[in-house]
Formats: sequence, C-alpha cells, structure tokens
Amino acid sequence: MQQSFSYDHLYHFTHAVFTSIGCSNKDAAIASKALLSADLRGIDSHGVARLTGYIRLWEAKRVNATPAIKIVHETPSTAVVDGDAGLGLVVAPYAMLVAIEKAKNVGTGWVSVRNSNHFGIAGYHAMMALQYDMIGIAMTNASALVAPTFSIERMLGTNPIAVAIPAGNQPPFVADFATTTAANGKLELLQRKNADAPLGWVQDKEGNDSTDANELKKGGLLLPLGSDREHGSHKGYALGSIVDIFSAVLSGASYGPWAPPFPAYVPMPEDMPGKGLGHFFGAMRIDAFRPADEFKQHMDQWIERFRNAKPAGGHEKVLIPGDPEREMETIRMRDRIPLTESVINELKTVGEKFSLRL
Amino acid sequence: MQQSFSYDHLYHFTHAVFTSIGCSNKDAAIASKALLSADLRGIDSHGVARLTGYIRLWEAKRVNATPAIKIVHETPSTAVVDGDAGLGLVVAPYAMLVAIEKAKNVGTGWVSVRNSNHFGIAGYHAMMALQYDMIGIAMTNASALVAPTFSIERMLGTNPIAVAIPAGNQPPFVADFATTTAANGKLELLQRKNADAPLGWVQDKEGNDSTDANELKKGGLLLPLGSDREHGSHKGYALGSIVDIFSAVLSGASYGPWAPPFPAYVPMPEDMPGKGLGHFFGAMRIDAFRPADEFKQHMDQWIERFRNAKPAGGHEKVLIPGDPEREMETIRMRDRIPLTESVINELKTVGEKFSLRL
Repeated sequence: MQQSFSYDHLYHFTHAVFTSIGCSNKDAAIASKALLSADLRGIDSHGVARLTGYIRLWEAKRVNATPAIKIVHETPSTAVVDGDAGLGLVVAPYAMLVAIEKAKNVGTGWVSVRNSNHFGIAGYHAMMALQYDMIGIAMTNASALVAPTFSIERMLGTNPIAVAIPAGNQPPFVADFATTTAANGKLELLQRKNADAPLGWVQDKEGNDSTDANELKKGGLLLPLGSDREHGSHKGYALGSIVDIFSAVLSGASYGPWAPPFPAYVPMPEDMPGKGLGHFFGAMRIDAFRPADEFKQHMDQWIERFRNAKPAGGHEKVLIPGDPEREMETIRMRDRIPLTESVINELKTVGEKFSLRL
Repeated sequence: MQQSFSYDHLYHFTHAVFTSIGCSNKDAAIASKALLSADLRGIDSHGVARLTGYIRLWEAKRVNATPAIKIVHETPSTAVVDGDAGLGLVVAPYAMLVAIEKAKNVGTGWVSVRNSNHFGIAGYHAMMALQYDMIGIAMTNASALVAPTFSIERMLGTNPIAVAIPAGNQPPFVADFATTTAANGKLELLQRKNADAPLGWVQDKEGNDSTDANELKKGGLLLPLGSDREHGSHKGYALGSIVDIFSAVLSGASYGPWAPPFPAYVPMPEDMPGKGLGHFFGAMRIDAFRPADEFKQHMDQWIERFRNAKPAGGHEKVLIPGDPEREMETIRMRDRIPLTESVINELKTVGEKFSLRL
C-alpha cells in the first residue's frame, strides 16, 4: 500500500525534524533539500526512507547537529575539510562550495573531507557545479559490504561516483552510480517483492554464487561492478578502492573495512585509522579549458549523437546518463512522491518523538 | 612459436625506427620508453606489437614525427595542449609534465589534450606522477568499438582510465583498465588460440549475445563494463562517456563515433567535430591534502589490510591493483620479453623499410 506526498509537505516535515534535533534553520534547509533530491530523482533508498537512520545516528551521538565545519589544510586548488561529525547532508554542500570557490580562482578545486556522515546521493552534490558552468564530481566511501575480487571479506562500501557535465540546449549529463554491480537499494526492492536477485549481484559468505536477495543479512557480500574476474570485477574493485582512498586516506577519514557503519545499532569498528566517513569533491571551470559556449555546443552535439545512436531491438532509444532521474523529477514534482507503508510508519514514529505530524 | 628479446635490444630497435621516421633523439627515447612499458608490464597488445601500426599512421600522414606541441590555453591549475598530430607516446608525457608542474605550484594540475594519437598504456603516464609524491591520473578516448547500453552502434572506444597512488614501504597502487568488460587485446589472445569468448564481452551487429572471439571483424561490438543493463553496463557506458568528454570535448579533439581510427587503412570519419584523438591527465600533490609521510603510512596500512583480506576458496591472496603488472615487469626485465612469431615478422618488415635489423 502506497500513499503519496507533495515535495513541499515532505520538505517541511524533514526540515522540522532536523531543527528538532538542534540543526540551525539554514542547515535544516540544506539537509532537507539534499535528502529529498533522492526522492525526487527516484532513488528511493537514499531519500526520506533514510531519515530515521540519520536520527538514530544523532541519538547514538554519532551525528553532531551543530558542527563547526572547517577547512584544516588548503592550497590554491585543494582543501581538506573536517565535518566535525555533522550530517553529511550539510558537510558535503559546504565542501562542494569550497571546491567551486577554488575553481573560480585557479580553474579547478578539489576537496577531501573527513569526519563526516552519509551525504545522500552523490549526484546532488556534483550537480551543484552546473549553475557555475563547471563540471562537478562527488564521491564518498561507505560502510563495508563489498568483497574485493578473490575475497570473501567485506572491505569496501558501495562507494558511488557522480559526474555532472553542463550542456547548452540539452539537459546536463549526470552520471551517479555505485561502484558495485547493483546498489543495496536494488536488493531491498527485490526483498519486498520476495524475488530473487540476478546471478552476479551478491555472493554468500563462503564466496559462492547466490541469487538470494537477502544474502547480505546472512553474512553475504555485494560484488564489485563486473561481478566476477572474467567480467571485469577487478575494475569495479579498483574503482571502489580509488573512491575510498580519495575520500578517506587523502583526508584522514576512516577507510576500507573501518568505515563507520550506517546503522546506529552496529558497533563502530575497533582501531579506526581516521575520523568518520570521507568524501571527495571536484569542480572544474569549463572556461579553464575552452570557452564555455563552444564546449556546450559540442556537448549538445555529443548528447544528440548518442541519443540517436541506433537502438538495439526492443529498445526505443539510447539514454544519456541522468535522463531517467530527470524525467522522474519532473513527474514527482508535479504528481507527488509515493512512499511505502513502512517508510510512512517510520516517519510517523520519528515525528512523534518531536511532536511533529507527517 | 615464441622468441624473446632483452628490453635493451627492443629499446634500441624501437628508438632507431622512431628516429628513422624523423623523430628527434629525445622524442624517440620518450616514445620508446612509453611504448615498451606495455611489454614490460605484460600488456602485450599495447607494446611493440603496435609499432607497425604507428608507422603506418606516419606513412598515411596522420602522425607528425616533428610536432610543435604547445599549450593553447591555461589557468593556474589547468591547460589545453595541442599535440600537433604527434605520436601520443610523445604528446602524453609532455602533457603529464605540464600537469605535474601546475600541481607543484597550486596543488593540482589538469590537462586536456587534442590533436594527438594513441598514447600506449594509460598507466605509464599516470605513474609519472609517483616520483613527485603525487597521485597521477590518465585517460584517453579511442576508435569507436563499443555499444552504449541499449544500442547496436559503435559509439565509444575502450577508453581506459589509470590512477597511480604512491605508498610508503608498499609498492604504489596502480589501476589501469579499459572501461569495457574486456579489452580488445583479450579477444586477440582468444583468436590466436581459436577459443570462444565468455558471454558478456561482445554482441553481434544485431545486438545478440555472442561468444565469437572474432565478432568485431564481423561488425560486432564490445560491451561496456557490466556487460548488460542488469549487471550495470550503464555504469561502464557512463565511465567510457566521461573519459570521452574529458579527453575530447573539453580539449577540442574528435569524440565518440568520430574518434580517429587506429588502423591507418580505415578512412577517417566524415565531419569530424575536433582535431585528432584526445587525452586527459591529472596530478594531485599529496601534501596539498595532508603531509606526504602521513598519507603514505596510511596507504601502507590500506594496502596491507586489503592484501590480507580473507581470500575466497581456491585463491591464495587478494591482489592490489598494479600487483600483476609489477611482478611481470620484474620477470621481463630479468628474463627478456617474449614476442609471438607474427609480431616478430611485422617488426622485421618495419625494420627492413629503414635498413634496421631486429
């Protein structure tokens, strides 16, 4: 059973929850906008469905609602930001703006972040660069759920990468993907339907192939993009590792199997080598390379040519990264955002804590 | 039948071939070192096996042996380099050094290159940054052989990405991979053995699954990393697209299906939107983020932890990106480089053109 809510309704509720835990009005607005961008874009696993999880982290004193976010080291084109254990939804936009400011000055800006928490969807932060005629890049490490190639130990998170590239008349190119074959949210959808997962998404805890959508609850593991060695899983493993190193080793966050877990009931790893979760952001001014209007004309040509590539049988057209999410955003802004009964019940429970009605 | 040659022997031969087409001694040395790094690292498809191809491009007047490579636009952290149709093996190290110089000054350097040719292996160029305590990044677009998800048209090259990250006592982390499920060189190995390819590497020209290792010769296509939509091919397609856009749209090179073909007998595409092949390079100074020795200690810990991750049954250990290639380099430097009979015959034919003996 589903019920749907307007964006504004969910925004006001989310904003009120964040101010109830002590966030400033400004931070609550920043966090609500970042969080709800996932619901609008159809990435339901990363939107308000996670609000309860964020609040539990605050209750466990792992999220600081009034962080003193600051730059701890910088050069003209780089910075390391310490998030002071704030919501990643607040820390990430701060750090992305630092990258954008540096790009204004010297062409590009690159910011590695430590001592943060989950930041919602990577694409939202990367897209912040678009309005400045910049390419935006965002990535983050995450709780370990993924087996490196040839391993049966959880060593990496789903470690997503997002890249947003402006165009002219065409909408921007926005890639945003986990470096695993399938994101955890896809498994959750199958669990709800009691359906099997395709081979190549997960392995069991002994490293055997599995189609059990509940495998992660039994000690199983997600597989890197490529699924197995023969199909390039060493490339997905390398990509996830690069995200981990750029986000956490470069900043002084906790990396690999020591990344802090998202569920507040899971104890923190022992001997953590750094502080909190890590992110990495980049901004590249287009006109640091060539005139922006010239670049955009060519991006339009690139996009039009790919959109019109000869489709395979049974497919109407070739998609450009970002097409499905943008179309979903238009629909959900117009028609409301559907939420499942269990998400609604969770939100109601969170609301009751703070005397708020969904 | 195989015969093997010392590195020095092949170096002198390759150097002599490059000077014979008019390269300066310095450029011939730069190009030979870059080319042979592929043979040393075991990426046989990209080493001296390609020398004949480069010479044919010179004969077709598509390679300029005495290019005036220059920076055509720059900011403190960025540059666009025009390769003047030089060998990519010469243009790429030039551009990578520009990125490194900029990183010395402002923390990072980012260089997009147009009007170039194939540059050998991406990893070689990325690794140039290591000696400066920098992270190195290299990528390139290439002749279109790859189908975007849901398409049956060749729109992208194998568009590799390399990232080299320094460590302390441990050897560096060096990822270098095509953004396809399998590189073309892997198919060539199977063709020689008359063996089938695994499902998920190629599709036929109608878009059907295929295990024919000769499929590309019949109009078939390589598949993006992930193989099919269910296993994340849209992510490989996005990665290959990002490489194409950073390398070619940002620089003014020719992109997508218009990328110049490597075989000199294939006519150039009509209405090319830019000049030659494109590359993209990055250099990030470690101490632009945190003290280099501190970073290296953590990279050592990262590498040791991953190397000791619990292995899957039948596997002795987990590999770190760059391990197999580094081990091969040690072996081949010591024991000589094996070449197949057909590569040897091709090299002899090239040698005869310039009165050189292999």
